[in-house]
Amino acid sequence: MAAAAAARLLRLAPRRLQVKTSPLAALSFPLPRTAPLAAASGRRQSFCAAAQASADAPAAAVAAATGPVGEAVGEFRKRLRVADVKGGEDEGAALVGKELAVRGWVRTCRAQRTVTFVEVNDGSCLSNMQCVLTPDTEGYDQIDSVTTGASVLVEGVVASSQGGKQKVELKVSKITVIGKSDPTSFPIQKKRASREFLRTVAHLRPRTNTFGAVTRVRNALAYATHKFFQDNGFVWVSSPIITASDCEGAGEQFYVTTLLSNSAEGGSLLKDIPATKDGRVDWSQDFFCKPAFLTVSGQLNGETYASALSDIYTFGPTFRAENSNTARHLAEFWMIEPELAFADLNDDMACATAYLQYVVKYIIENCKEDMDFFNTWVEKGIIDRLNDVVEKKFVHLSYTDAVELLLGSKKKFEFPVKWGLDLQSEHERYITEVAFGGRPVIIRDYPKEIKAFYMRQNDDGKTVAAMDLLVPRVGELIGGSQREERLDHLEARLDEQNLNKESYWWYLDLRRYGSVPHAGFGLGFERLVQFATGIDNIRDAIPFPRVPGSAEF
Amino acid sequence: MAAAAAARLLRLAPRRLQVKTSPLAALSFPLPRTAPLAAASGRRQSFCAAAQASADAPAAAVAAATGPVGEAVGEFRKRLRVADVKGGEDEGAALVGKELAVRGWVRTCRAQRTVTFVEVNDGSCLSNMQCVLTPDTEGYDQIDSVTTGASVLVEGVVASSQGGKQKVELKVSKITVIGKSDPTSFPIQKKRASREFLRTVAHLRPRTNTFGAVTRVRNALAYATHKFFQDNGFVWVSSPIITASDCEGAGEQFYVTTLLSNSAEGGSLLKDIPATKDGRVDWSQDFFCKPAFLTVSGQLNGETYASALSDIYTFGPTFRAENSNTARHLAEFWMIEPELAFADLNDDMACATAYLQYVVKYIIENCKEDMDFFNTWVEKGIIDRLNDVVEKKFVHLSYTDAVELLLGSKKKFEFPVKWGLDLQSEHERYITEVAFGGRPVIIRDYPKEIKAFYMRQNDDGKTVAAMDLLVPRVGELIGGSQREERLDHLEARLDEQNLNKESYWWYLDLRRYGSVPHAGFGLGFERLVQFATGIDNIRDAIPFPRVPGSAEF
Repeated sequence: MAAAAAARLLRLAPRRLQVKTSPLAALSFPLPRTAPLAAASGRRQSFCAAAQASADAPAAAVAAATGPVGEAVGEFRKRLRVADVKGGEDEGAALVGKELAVRGWVRTCRAQRTVTFVEVNDGSCLSNMQCVLTPDTEGYDQIDSVTTGASVLVEGVVASSQGGKQKVELKVSKITVIGKSDPTSFPIQKKRASREFLRTVAHLRPRTNTFGAVTRVRNALAYATHKFFQDNGFVWVSSPIITASDCEGAGEQFYVTTLLSNSAEGGSLLKDIPATKDGRVDWSQDFFCKPAFLTVSGQLNGETYASALSDIYTFGPTFRAENSNTARHLAEFWMIEPELAFADLNDDMACATAYLQYVVKYIIENCKEDMDFFNTWVEKGIIDRLNDVVEKKFVHLSYTDAVELLLGSKKKFEFPVKWGLDLQSEHERYITEVAFGGRPVIIRDYPKEIKAFYMRQNDDGKTVAAMDLLVPRVGELIGGSQREERLDHLEARLDEQNLNKESYWWYLDLRRYGSVPHAGFGLGFERLVQFATGIDNIRDAIPFPRVPGSAEF
Repeated sequence: MAAAAAARLLRLAPRRLQVKTSPLAALSFPLPRTAPLAAASGRRQSFCAAAQASADAPAAAVAAATGPVGEAVGEFRKRLRVADVKGGEDEGAALVGKELAVRGWVRTCRAQRTVTFVEVNDGSCLSNMQCVLTPDTEGYDQIDSVTTGASVLVEGVVASSQGGKQKVELKVSKITVIGKSDPTSFPIQKKRASREFLRTVAHLRPRTNTFGAVTRVRNALAYATHKFFQDNGFVWVSSPIITASDCEGAGEQFYVTTLLSNSAEGGSLLKDIPATKDGRVDWSQDFFCKPAFLTVSGQLNGETYASALSDIYTFGPTFRAENSNTARHLAEFWMIEPELAFADLNDDMACATAYLQYVVKYIIENCKEDMDFFNTWVEKGIIDRLNDVVEKKFVHLSYTDAVELLLGSKKKFEFPVKWGLDLQSEHERYITEVAFGGRPVIIRDYPKEIKAFYMRQNDDGKTVAAMDLLVPRVGELIGGSQREERLDHLEARLDEQNLNKESYWWYLDLRRYGSVPHAGFGLGFERLVQFATGIDNIRDAIPFPRVPGSAEF
C-alpha cells in the first residue's frame, strides 16, 4: 500500500529524457566516471544553475527498474579545477585547442590596448588561469564588474601562452560574473597586505597566494600524517576534548561549564551562578556534575588504547590557557600523539624520525608549486632545509652529552647551561644549527626533575627516558618518552610530585593489568606547518587562531 | 670548534659492530625495509628490552661518513602483528613451519590434559593467535601468571591447527610474561560483560572483541572519509573549536572560560569571580575578553574557506550542552562538514550519496572480519543492509511529497503529520524502511520556518534548499543545504529570525565579495559508526563518551 502510494506520488513528476550535449561537456569532467549510468532518464540534475547551466555536462537520474522509487540521486561529478588543467607535467600543453570552463575568483584584471588579461584562481593550486578577453568576448559588457575578488565563470579555448609565466592561457569566448566585489571596499587589493592586517580578515585571507598555499600544505601534512600511521598499522583514536580529570594541573586549562549560561538580559549575573552555602561554585549543578576542562593532551587516554590495540595515534585539538602572546603559542592547536605498545625509547625515536621524514618528503613531492612559492617569497632555502631532513640521518645524543657539548662550545648563551636545568631555545638551535650543521638532533635521557611523572625512570636513578627532537630554525618540534610501565615506580613518581593517585586510578590500572613497555610522542601540528612553510608566526599556520584576547570569526 | 667538540663527545660512546642474528629475525619484519642501511655500525638499538631482546631482529646505527655526528637514529621497524600472520587470504597457511614471535594480551588460557591453549590478542585484528603450550615449553613455570589480561611474548613455530576455528596456531617454544593481571580483580573476565558495565571501565573495554572491532571500524571510517575527500580534491580545514561568535544561539553551548580558575583551596569562591559594578560577570577579564563557547558547527567557518579553495571539508569535534540522556546524543562528538563551491543542492545530494557509498564500501572491503563479527553478534543482517546502501540508487523526494506519502500511508503515527511540521524519527524510518523498502532516501526542500537562516530560499518563497539523508534503522544521518548566497535574501532571513546582523559581518562579507552558489552537509561521525556497526548506544561508538553528569577518564 505504502509502496503504491510512493509510486503514485512519484509519477507526479513526469520523467523526460533530457540529455543535453555541450562542446564543453567532455572537458568539464576530465576524470573517468567511476560508475557509468545504466540508463539515462529522469529530470536533469542542474549543476549550479546560478553559475550558468550551459557550461555543464548533462547529468541524468535513473529510475530503478523495480519497486517504488522517487527520483534517483545524480552522480557525483567533479568540477573542472585549474589544477586539473595546469597541474600536470606539461602544465596544460596537451589541452591546447580544447574548450573548457573554469570557475573561480578574479585576482587581477589588466586592460591592454586590444586585449584584457583576467587572472582567475579557484584555490585548487597556486597558479591562476590566465584568461584573455577582447571586446568581442560575450559578456565583455560586464567587464567593469570583473574586479579583484569577484567570482566568474569563464568559457573558452585553451591556447599556448605568449607570456613566459605559463604554458597555456584561456582564449575566452564568454565570461559571466557570478558575484561582484566592490573594488573600493574589498579588503584584499592587489598590493601586498601585511600578515598582521590579514589576520583581521581571516575569512578572506585564504584568497591570497600565501594563505592559499599554507592551507594546501597544511592539508597535505595532515593527510600524510594519516597515511603514514595507517600504512604502519596504527589506529586513529579520538581522545576526549572535555575532561574532568585535571591530570596535568588545572592552572593552564580552560574551564568548560554551563553554570554561566543562564544569562540575564545584559549579561550573566553573578548571583545566578549556583553556589554552595559557603559561597563556592556549586559544581554539582554543572553539566558534568564536577569541574570540567579542555584537554591539554590526549596522551594518557591514548595509552589506554595502545594497551589494547598496540599502536594508536590521536590527531585532534588541544588547549592551553597560557597568557603567552608569542609567535609560537596558540590557545587552541592541533596535536598528533602516537603511542606504541611493546616499544622503548629507541623505537620511539625511530618512529618520530620516520614520521617526520615521511611527511616532509610528501609535501616536497606533492606540493611542488606551493613549496617553490615559499622558497622564493617566504623563506629562501627552505626546500634545501627540508631536503636535509629527508636525506640526512637524524642524530641522537643524551642530555648529559648535550650539556657537555654546550659547555665545551665556548659560546656565550643568554641562559645558563648546567646539568639539571632545562635546555632553552637558544641551546637547542645551537645544537641542531651549529654543532650538527642543520641536521635534526634528538636529545634524550633528561633529568627526571624537569620532566613529567609518567616518563620511564632510567637505571641511573637520575634521568628519564625522554626525548626531544630538535630541528633547525624551529627548535623543539617533537617531544616524547618511554612511559613508566612499572606500577611501583609510577606510584612513587606521583607521590614525589604530590599528585593525587586516586584521580589516576584508570591510568594506574594499565600497570596493574597486562602492563607493557610503551612509548610515544607529541607533535604540535601548527609548529610542523611553520617548520614546513617557513611561516614566522604560528597565527598564520591555522585558519582561525585563538590567542589571549581574541577568538574572532 | 663546536664540531670538534661534538665529535669528541661521541667518541665517548665506543662503537662496536653488533649484528645479532636470530632464527626469528626474518619473520619479525615481514614487510620490506624501505631504506636499507648503508653501513651497519654503532650501538645496537635495543627493541623493547623489557619484552626480551632475543626475539628481535638486529638493528644498526649508522655513523655518517662526514661531519660531527652523534649516534644515528635507528630505522623504524614494524612489529610483527597477529594481523600480519592471519590477515591474509590464506589465514596464515603459507607461514606453516616458520618461527615467529607475537606480543599481546591473554584472552583465555585453557589447560587440557597434555597441552594448554593460550589465546593471545594484540588488537591488530579480531582474531587471536592460538598458542599451544606443553609442560616442556620454556617459561611454562610461569603458567599461573598466564591469566586473562596479562601481556605475554610468545615465540614458536607456526603449525596447521587441528581445530576448525583457525587455519594456523603457534607451537610455543618459549613464553614470557611481560605484565601480570590479577585474575581476582581484573574487571573484564571471560564471561560476557554488559555494555553498561564496560562504560565504567572505558580504559579497558577496547580489550574486548566488541570494542576492539568498533575501534578498528571507526578508524577505517575516518580514514575512508579523508581518502574520499582528498581523492576528490577537497582540502581539509580545521574549523575553530573555541568561538566567540554565538551564531547558533548560546543556549546549547558550553562556555569556555578562565574566570573560574582562581580556585581557592576547597573550591572556587563566587566572590573571586571578576564582576562589574552591577554584579554581572566581567567578561572583559576573561581569557578572550568576551564570552567564548565551544563550537556547535564548523560550517560558517568552512564556508569562508570554500569561498577561496572551492571544495573543503572539516572533520573535528563539536559540542552540545543539551541535557539529553538518550542513546543518540553526546555532549562531545565528531562532525564531518564538507562545503562545495559552485554547487547547488543536486551537487550536494550527489556528494553525500557518493561519500556514504564510498565509506560503507570501504569498511565492507577492508574490515571483513570485524563486519562478520557485527553481523553475527551485534546486528544480524547488517552486512546486507550496508550492501543495500552501496548498491541501491538513493532516492530523493521533496518534503511536500514526503508529507503526502505519509498522509496517504494510512499508518497511525504518534506525532502528527502536517505540512509545516518537522518530520519525526518515526516518519523518517517509515519512509526509508517501509515506503522505499530499505533504500536510503533524501528528503529535500523543507519549509523555511523549520530550517536554519543560512539555507537558500527556493523560488516558491515557502521552502528552502535543504536536504536530510535518511537511512534504515538510524533515520537522519546527514543534513545539508544549499547556502543562501544572495546578500539581500540572507539579511532578510537574519532579520526574520531576530539574529544580530553585526555579529555575522564576516559571514555576510562572503556575499559581498565574489559570492558563489555553494552547498554542504554535516554528518555526525558517531552516528555513522552506529549505522556501520549496529551498535545501539552512541556512547559505545566513541572511546570516551561525554554526556550529562559524566566526563570520566
